[in-house]
Amino acid sequence: MVKNFSCSLNSLESDSLHEKCGVFGVYGKDVEAARLVYYGLWALQHRGQESSGIASANENLISVFKGEGLVSHVYTESSLSLLKGSVAIGHNRYSTSGGSCAKHIQPIYEEGSLFALAHNGNLPIVTNLQNFLISKGINPNGSNDSELMYKILNYYVVKGYSLEDAVKKCFPMFIGSFCLILMSENKLIAVRDSYGIRPLCIGKLNNEGYVFSSESCALDIINAEYVREVNPGEMVVVDKNGLKSFELAKGTQKLDIFEFVYFARPDSILLGKRVNEVRKSLGRILAKEARVKGDVIIPVPDSSIPASFGYSQQAKIPVDFGLIKNRYVHRTFIKPAQSLRDLGVKMKLNTIPEIFKGKEVLVIDDSIVRGTTSKKIVELVKNAGARKVHMLISSPPVRYPDFYGIDTPDQNELIAANMSVEEIRNYIEADSLHFLSYKGLIEATGLSENLFTTTHFTGIYPIDIGERNDINIRKNFVKISV
Amino acid sequence: MVKNFSCSLNSLESDSLHEKCGVFGVYGKDVEAARLVYYGLWALQHRGQESSGIASANENLISVFKGEGLVSHVYTESSLSLLKGSVAIGHNRYSTSGGSCAKHIQPIYEEGSLFALAHNGNLPIVTNLQNFLISKGINPNGSNDSELMYKILNYYVVKGYSLEDAVKKCFPMFIGSFCLILMSENKLIAVRDSYGIRPLCIGKLNNEGYVFSSESCALDIINAEYVREVNPGEMVVVDKNGLKSFELAKGTQKLDIFEFVYFARPDSILLGKRVNEVRKSLGRILAKEARVKGDVIIPVPDSSIPASFGYSQQAKIPVDFGLIKNRYVHRTFIKPAQSLRDLGVKMKLNTIPEIFKGKEVLVIDDSIVRGTTSKKIVELVKNAGARKVHMLISSPPVRYPDFYGIDTPDQNELIAANMSVEEIRNYIEADSLHFLSYKGLIEATGLSENLFTTTHFTGIYPIDIGERNDINIRKNFVKISV
Amino acid sequence: MVKNFSCSLNSLESDSLHEKCGVFGVYGKDVEAARLVYYGLWALQHRGQESSGIASANENLISVFKGEGLVSHVYTESSLSLLKGSVAIGHNRYSTSGGSCAKHIQPIYEEGSLFALAHNGNLPIVTNLQNFLISKGINPNGSNDSELMYKILNYYVVKGYSLEDAVKKCFPMFIGSFCLILMSENKLIAVRDSYGIRPLCIGKLNNEGYVFSSESCALDIINAEYVREVNPGEMVVVDKNGLKSFELAKGTQKLDIFEFVYFARPDSILLGKRVNEVRKSLGRILAKEARVKGDVIIPVPDSSIPASFGYSQQAKIPVDFGLIKNRYVHRTFIKPAQSLRDLGVKMKLNTIPEIFKGKEVLVIDDSIVRGTTSKKIVELVKNAGARKVHMLISSPPVRYPDFYGIDTPDQNELIAANMSVEEIRNYIEADSLHFLSYKGLIEATGLSENLFTTTHFTGIYPIDIGERNDINIRKNFVKISV
Amino acid sequence: MVKNFSCSLNSLESDSLHEKCGVFGVYGKDVEAARLVYYGLWALQHRGQESSGIASANENLISVFKGEGLVSHVYTESSLSLLKGSVAIGHNRYSTSGGSCAKHIQPIYEEGSLFALAHNGNLPIVTNLQNFLISKGINPNGSNDSELMYKILNYYVVKGYSLEDAVKKCFPMFIGSFCLILMSENKLIAVRDSYGIRPLCIGKLNNEGYVFSSESCALDIINAEYVREVNPGEMVVVDKNGLKSFELAKGTQKLDIFEFVYFARPDSILLGKRVNEVRKSLGRILAKEARVKGDVIIPVPDSSIPASFGYSQQAKIPVDFGLIKNRYVHRTFIKPAQSLRDLGVKMKLNTIPEIFKGKEVLVIDDSIVRGTTSKKIVELVKNAGARKVHMLISSPPVRYPDFYGIDTPDQNELIAANMSVEEIRNYIEADSLHFLSYKGLIEATGLSENLFTTTHFTGIYPIDIGERNDINIRKNFVKISV
Repeated sequence: MVKNFSCSLNSLESDSLHEKCGVFGVYGKDVEAARLVYYGLWALQHRGQESSGIASANENLISVFKGEGLVSHVYTESSLSLLKGSVAIGHNRYSTSGGSCAKHIQPIYEEGSLFALAHNGNLPIVTNLQNFLISKGINPNGSNDSELMYKILNYYVVKGYSLEDAVKKCFPMFIGSFCLILMSENKLIAVRDSYGIRPLCIGKLNNEGYVFSSESCALDIINAEYVREVNPGEMVVVDKNGLKSFELAKGTQKLDIFEFVYFARPDSILLGKRVNEVRKSLGRILAKEARVKGDVIIPVPDSSIPASFGYSQQAKIPVDFGLIKNRYVHRTFIKPAQSLRDLGVKMKLNTIPEIFKGKEVLVIDDSIVRGTTSKKIVELVKNAGARKVHMLISSPPVRYPDFYGIDTPDQNELIAANMSVEEIRNYIEADSLHFLSYKGLIEATGLSENLFTTTHFTGIYPIDIGERNDINIRKNFVKISV
Repeated sequence: MVKNFSCSLNSLESDSLHEKCGVFGVYGKDVEAARLVYYGLWALQHRGQESSGIASANENLISVFKGEGLVSHVYTESSLSLLKGSVAIGHNRYSTSGGSCAKHIQPIYEEGSLFALAHNGNLPIVTNLQNFLISKGINPNGSNDSELMYKILNYYVVKGYSLEDAVKKCFPMFIGSFCLILMSENKLIAVRDSYGIRPLCIGKLNNEGYVFSSESCALDIINAEYVREVNPGEMVVVDKNGLKSFELAKGTQKLDIFEFVYFARPDSILLGKRVNEVRKSLGRILAKEARVKGDVIIPVPDSSIPASFGYSQQAKIPVDFGLIKNRYVHRTFIKPAQSLRDLGVKMKLNTIPEIFKGKEVLVIDDSIVRGTTSKKIVELVKNAGARKVHMLISSPPVRYPDFYGIDTPDQNELIAANMSVEEIRNYIEADSLHFLSYKGLIEATGLSENLFTTTHFTGIYPIDIGERNDINIRKNFVKISV
Repeated sequence: MVKNFSCSLNSLESDSLHEKCGVFGVYGKDVEAARLVYYGLWALQHRGQESSGIASANENLISVFKGEGLVSHVYTESSLSLLKGSVAIGHNRYSTSGGSCAKHIQPIYEEGSLFALAHNGNLPIVTNLQNFLISKGINPNGSNDSELMYKILNYYVVKGYSLEDAVKKCFPMFIGSFCLILMSENKLIAVRDSYGIRPLCIGKLNNEGYVFSSESCALDIINAEYVREVNPGEMVVVDKNGLKSFELAKGTQKLDIFEFVYFARPDSILLGKRVNEVRKSLGRILAKEARVKGDVIIPVPDSSIPASFGYSQQAKIPVDFGLIKNRYVHRTFIKPAQSLRDLGVKMKLNTIPEIFKGKEVLVIDDSIVRGTTSKKIVELVKNAGARKVHMLISSPPVRYPDFYGIDTPDQNELIAANMSVEEIRNYIEADSLHFLSYKGLIEATGLSENLFTTTHFTGIYPIDIGERNDINIRKNFVKISV
Repeated sequence: MVKNFSCSLNSLESDSLHEKCGVFGVYGKDVEAARLVYYGLWALQHRGQESSGIASANENLISVFKGEGLVSHVYTESSLSLLKGSVAIGHNRYSTSGGSCAKHIQPIYEEGSLFALAHNGNLPIVTNLQNFLISKGINPNGSNDSELMYKILNYYVVKGYSLEDAVKKCFPMFIGSFCLILMSENKLIAVRDSYGIRPLCIGKLNNEGYVFSSESCALDIINAEYVREVNPGEMVVVDKNGLKSFELAKGTQKLDIFEFVYFARPDSILLGKRVNEVRKSLGRILAKEARVKGDVIIPVPDSSIPASFGYSQQAKIPVDFGLIKNRYVHRTFIKPAQSLRDLGVKMKLNTIPEIFKGKEVLVIDDSIVRGTTSKKIVELVKNAGARKVHMLISSPPVRYPDFYGIDTPDQNELIAANMSVEEIRNYIEADSLHFLSYKGLIEATGLSENLFTTTHFTGIYPIDIGERNDINIRKNFVKISV
């Protein structure tokens, strides 16, 4: 659980906090591409709820429609009907809200230009991009990393490069994590950084055409067939001649393992594995490791439900839903104001006292970040009548923030970077506290450790980002031993 | 499950389709009443997602803020801060959307008047109200039932009656279901119709003051203590002298039993019973009645989760979450346009094939209305690899629409009014289909059948609504034998 | 000149400051009535620049379009095209601006009602209307005089009275000045109070149909033929059977003589006299009375231009335009904020020094209210090089505010109520100052003194408005001898 | 009179029709610069009524506020209060209206850039600018001439050039007419093209600081002292060290003589001459040349008033205002829709029949463009009862369109390019028609012919604009002999 991440939002530059966004693109034939993108964005809503936008191209004209809020709020039948054409891209933005951020809603498109761009990821280093633009007489001020990428690509496109050639030219300049979907009048292009830190996959439309999506769950919603992931370092170009692949760099797969722990939807497939099944394994292995017994397993909804079933199957303890989630309080990340936080976890969770009364309960959650939410959950559960509360976490302690823009707090706010497990248990006032081991985490994926970015748990980053003062966002980071 | 109800929305007068709304009121001392109402409306969001409004009174001035969409969308810190004062009421509206409906967003308040009103319920007969107003020279055109109630109350208030006396005067004229919360500068009033068809309860604020809420779950969110329900036929008045009760009519409790089946949140208490526990009993009794066995129980999320656990406990079959709900597609009721419906249930549900592959599965849902959703779920589940699919419904067949505004389709669209259980099973292509018995439904509540309105299942209405052509909404109703 | 009136706006109830509005109505056959009203409102723009609205009726549906600002700003081709039908009315509102006033923009129409209303005039006494409404259970709070009239008429219409009968019923309750244009689905009605204080005339459309307008200049713009004025106390009803007249009261013509002095457009005809020619006579008689000589006559544009030509013709002194008016600073009345007033008359007037250099000049203005503008004009003219400045005013001293809502300051702000002519001359630092005599004013109209309301000059009001504390607006009024 | 120019608006590229705009800039000390600019824009409203904008710089932050409509409509007290700082520039845009044009409202400012720009003038050739930008990788699409200038200046500024150096670098690339006012955080810069085709002058604020304005009349409104004109080819830089002048090119004064005929406000000074007095001379010389006698001189308001007084003084015929202008129908240029044009001149002018009845009248107008307005005026005047109508024009026949963006029709729409004077007289049905001679026009200015651009009358352009197909706007131009 990373619910507490929200608190750090206001103390950071909002421009760069958008790694966990959702991107989607469609190149079809005689389809309303924008409408398909709209469905895809619904399915990717969990990756970003701040704002949403769709660009489509029709007869030489690129149109863009954007707005703040959920997909269901941003678009109307009439706005969709304005987005004509059979190629379209879309973006759900995850980040802090605020009027001044409206200008950063993606897809990015500059009037009179020949292409639009949607970006999921984060470039921790952008000084090279800024310097490049300045050297060309193009103003980089006020542009976030995604917009800088757009401006540099645009520089080449205006000079006459094809969009593919512009991407090839610029790819080496982009340092960080990025899944890009680009669209021109008659082309759809997907690009993934050399480490494949964020997910991006390819689907096929039955009536000719291709789809790119952050997660495979969004292919299902429009009946597109899953083909494969875009490879790290790969550019995939779709046009009227079909799909072509270009290796822009020798890629090394380094998917952020947090996608399995928490970010991705359970019905998505990552690296060939169904997220739901990996999460169940997390629970099963946690049961083997922790060996905690009790009367009932209570998942913290929704992300820890699969792990709870895994634990239950392994430990033969029944699951029950004693914590009721308010479906309309979306991820804590976007909670608007301090005053709302005072009621804390009550805004999101309520208890069914009949389920807790006199019981020894195992509460399963996906992660602990600051510890404040866990503390409140334990209190809630005890107030509801539980006799004993065991807190079980289906991932290892989060000891490191990351460099790629998932909106983590500074390291000194991470409880596991500052306390031992026993100290945390004492702080949250649980009767026992168990984390899944790092080994158990890897085992649950059924894949090699080499395939993952595990920064949050190990402090190891795949990309060399050089001197600290070059870095776009993070401060006060100290590498500590696990 | 009543997901198909949505389809009838456009063929009906939208003005009257708002029975299942949420209302909330606060009378405090030195509290920001509007902010507490805001929290309450979050907790009642499931009762209405179309629009929301709050009125508060401060120093002789009533202010109202309203908007279309979810609570999280309508209000901002700055709009809340404009709603000063320690008495406030709020309303979540459930109904079809559309620009022209914006004018009907509640609370109702006419500029220059002395009170505001929020209404949950429906008056099937309003001709008497219209005629009364015309006789007084007040224009009833363009007003829905809630607004007619307001205008008549206002007539008396302008003539000098106190708000309580106006309510007493008007109460006999209001024919139908209504939970009203009214607010003047220095008073908060709750009124419930003589049959108590919709829920309404009283809470106590610790720092002096009282709260009224459609459901008790909204008391928890602001740490208010549950006191009791407002009685059928009762008016409760809160002012600086505390709480006073008036019996406006001899009430007979007739709560709509669908509140237990589907409408209410599981953590609410109705008639002294926790909704979650009643739903578990529905599952347990269903297991005893149906005796269906299989490999795994799959709840149709979210409303059938408790019944699934009940069935599981009784039948010793494990629950697993094979159907993943898109959290951002709120109740089917508010689906915007025909074009979205073509993708049908895919917008809301996706499958985890690994859970279904080769299994005999028990799918548990709360109800069947038209049957089209059930048919699609069976298809989804089979496509995901299930060997056999048993559909189990934790309520009896819905054979009758209702007169009170829950947005049910005409009777000829209710599949159980037109087909036998076997015909339905055949239509939805399940391997077996079982409904809970009516007797089992009553038994699960642990309460007497006399306490309920059971129209959907029995066709019996508590209120005499006389000639058919007087009725506000429904047509083509034929009483059939159960 | 009444330019200084603006200063009192903020210290008065804005609701009642709308006497000098413009109203216009069209009943035609196969015409776009709203478009003709639009043209009419352009021609009446000088009577109100704060806001504008048009209502039209088409097939049982009354539509209204309103906005703040000038006619040219409020309407667009597309908004006009929504106002279908061959009967329409319009209103230009003159008053202080401000967001909170938007709700008072006319025509007045209550949703679901059967008629719309536009009002030019002012009811100084409305307590009887308020009491009537309260006695009927209709809330009068927050309604200005026009809206109270609408509500009472609506009371009778809802009770089943025809619109004409409702007017007959209510006419005796309306105490003050009012030109009303009312419109139902198939009727256009004009009503004028018994004293005819504000102007209202009838025109004929060539292709069948009639027009009502505050001034005849608006008939010219749509090529309607001037027929006659609506008589004091008369109701004129136009429907498919043509025009019918009803005498609701024995009227006595008492036109506000200030319409001739300043309000009306020079090309309008009032009481059979062209305003421009009356103003020229004002100048001619002023020349005879004042006998001031000099090098050049300088009109204060625009209202004193005709009087300047009159003076010139009589005194054989040439006119020249030494004061240049900023065409885009509309009447001082609507100047927005204090900060703008600091630059004073400079915002509106600039000088051509070549015209003043070394000259003895006669500056002609239409009136002096507070004296501050005159003082600044004298200063401007002297700074431009004039050797001597004679100020000549084409009306008598304004010594009394009025009860009918022309936005005059309190009596203690009227310079002529507090100073002798010589004291004023001294204050404005002119070399001489001459007012037209009251007798000269009457003589210039060519009409009997009996036909006019002359309150500003004589303190005599045609209507008995009883006790001071009943009066809607004015305070601190003391009758002084002329 | 150039009122008919409007008709050609829709057949031309709207982007380039903005030569006759108004620009204003303030560099002060402890002043609210934006507020002073606001006053200046009021005074320059006659140069552009379509839209208006102000940019100000405060502590490193440039803020811009823009809107469609008149200055009085665009700004509010609160919008002005947001524009902090003691350096500011503003722009009134004259052009066709329409939603799509909103993006072109000036001042131009690109977010994150270091300067803002306001432009009055027109570049007939921009292909060189477009090519330059493309060669630098900057997209020129969708940019009008002003925006292209901004982009090229920005290119140099981003590369590190000071704003002055950027202007020096770019000046030779700008081919056409341009008065530029530029502003950075701490500098105000004015630039005028080498021919000084549009006016631009310098004023001094008493409390330190300088002002630039299109016309001197806007200096008067804020009590700034007129210093001198910006010279053709000059750049004037104001910063904390005061004012510095740079000669960017050897300038040759070639002011558009139409500024004297019609464009400028009469109280402005151009080339040392008061516009009003030049216009009076036009009338005086016209009287000498035409020698037409009659009973009364009728000016077509407002621009021909001074010439009418000049004629009157010379010919000893009295002036009277028989044509009344609707003050709220601003220059014909911005008339919105075809449907409004059907009522033609009636929207703008009405007659006082008493002035015309039985008279031989001399109607004086400033110019004839298409002839349609003159024709309608003659008809109006005859319908008002005139016995004879002599049309006198205080400028020579307009036989050539211009290349600099004053919104003239194509040459084949200019009546004087296609008809002799007698043919025009016949067309407009006047009893006689007289134009001022070209010689008389020059004489009236009291200046040398060399100082003027006289394109409309002579077809001679000061700038070599090479091949026809390079030209931005005009087509179908044929040089004809005068």
